[in-house]
Amino acid sequence: MTPTITAFERSPDRGRGLARDMRVRWALEEVGQAYDVRLVSFSELKEAAHRRLHPFGQIPTYEEGDLALFESGAIVFHIAQRHAGLLPDDAKARARAITWMFAALNTVEPPIFERSMAIIVEREKAWHEERLRLLEDRVHVRLGELSGRLGDANWLEGVFSAGDLLMVTVLRRLVGSGILENYPRLCAYIARAEARPAYQRAFEGQLSVFTGQPTTG
Amino acid sequence: MTPTITAFERSPDRGRGLARDMRVRWALEEVGQAYDVRLVSFSELKEAAHRRLHPFGQIPTYEEGDLALFESGAIVFHIAQRHAGLLPDDAKARARAITWMFAALNTVEPPIFERSMAIIVEREKAWHEERLRLLEDRVHVRLGELSGRLGDANWLEGVFSAGDLLMVTVLRRLVGSGILENYPRLCAYIARAEARPAYQRAFEGQLSVFTGQPTTG
Repeated sequence: MTPTITAFERSPDRGRGLARDMRVRWALEEVGQAYDVRLVSFSELKEAAHRRLHPFGQIPTYEEGDLALFESGAIVFHIAQRHAGLLPDDAKARARAITWMFAALNTVEPPIFERSMAIIVEREKAWHEERLRLLEDRVHVRLGELSGRLGDANWLEGVFSAGDLLMVTVLRRLVGSGILENYPRLCAYIARAEARPAYQRAFEGQLSVFTGQPTTG
Repeated sequence: MTPTITAFERSPDRGRGLARDMRVRWALEEVGQAYDVRLVSFSELKEAAHRRLHPFGQIPTYEEGDLALFESGAIVFHIAQRHAGLLPDDAKARARAITWMFAALNTVEPPIFERSMAIIVEREKAWHEERLRLLEDRVHVRLGELSGRLGDANWLEGVFSAGDLLMVTVLRRLVGSGILENYPRLCAYIARAEARPAYQRAFEGQLSVFTGQPTTG
């Protein structure tokens, strides 16, 4: 059964692949699962019909028969459980890869997301610059730690996993900030991920919503 | 094999159960798995020996033979996979419960954690009060949505799961803020969780680090 995911009808990032449907598209492309995309307007996000699928009124959601999921990390995990290619078979290696999924979303993403939020919400405040420096200090701590752990490896645990997929989508939110350039290993890590054919198909898919080209998937 | 987890040597919350080892203790108590606790000082957290276990220099970690995990969400998930009692057996119900684990950590926790961070880091800033109101608005949005979804149910998906366990630990960070009192259903939800014998054993375990009583587990 072909699953259906939701994405923004109007891409707030102009198709740069920063919305969280990108994570789900990429996971589906990695495992070779076709999917349909239903576009949702900003007003529909907050209506009862969508909130039945997603209590927090966001995208993406994932529907497959009578199973309905929300939360990009959970959807990526569900895809990784159902198909080969995103989590190792060995139980211990699998637990390690899952650890990186949670680390991406609960340790690395929060300071990066707060920085983006501050730029959107607090840009006009007199204290914006001062606070942005505090936030960027927190981001630098995490990036330094992550870069140190990655070292010269291609992926966080040897082979590409859903942990790398989520981590790269988290890091990509910093593209254009000038911050990533301090961490050449992380830049190379992101570039390695972006070179994957599945990433490129997913990126084209989300970009087509913005450009108005037909959605593939 | 008895797993070993790490916790703060000196409890920064004076044993109120807000450190993230509480999540892991609670999960282990729910499934009836004995465990050892190794206490780590603040300086040891940042040393190479601990960073080999936890790249971000935090607690908790989890060691079981040659398997070493970090990140509280990942550790709780590992425990829930290995033992009955924290995730439903039915595949769809299980995917729903896992969705709530990610929702707790990636949607509900970030604004709550940011509020705590602001109180610690920005208390002396002239703009602290103004910014705290912005942060609390974000917290209220999430709590309203969560309360609406929970409704009059005991737990988020019918039966208690690791999703509820993580959600309750996230919400408990707001105890004493005066915010939770606007959401009587969430207060009742937290109270229901705190009444569980496993919660109480875990709470006593972490409190004993602060009071100096022997650690149980």
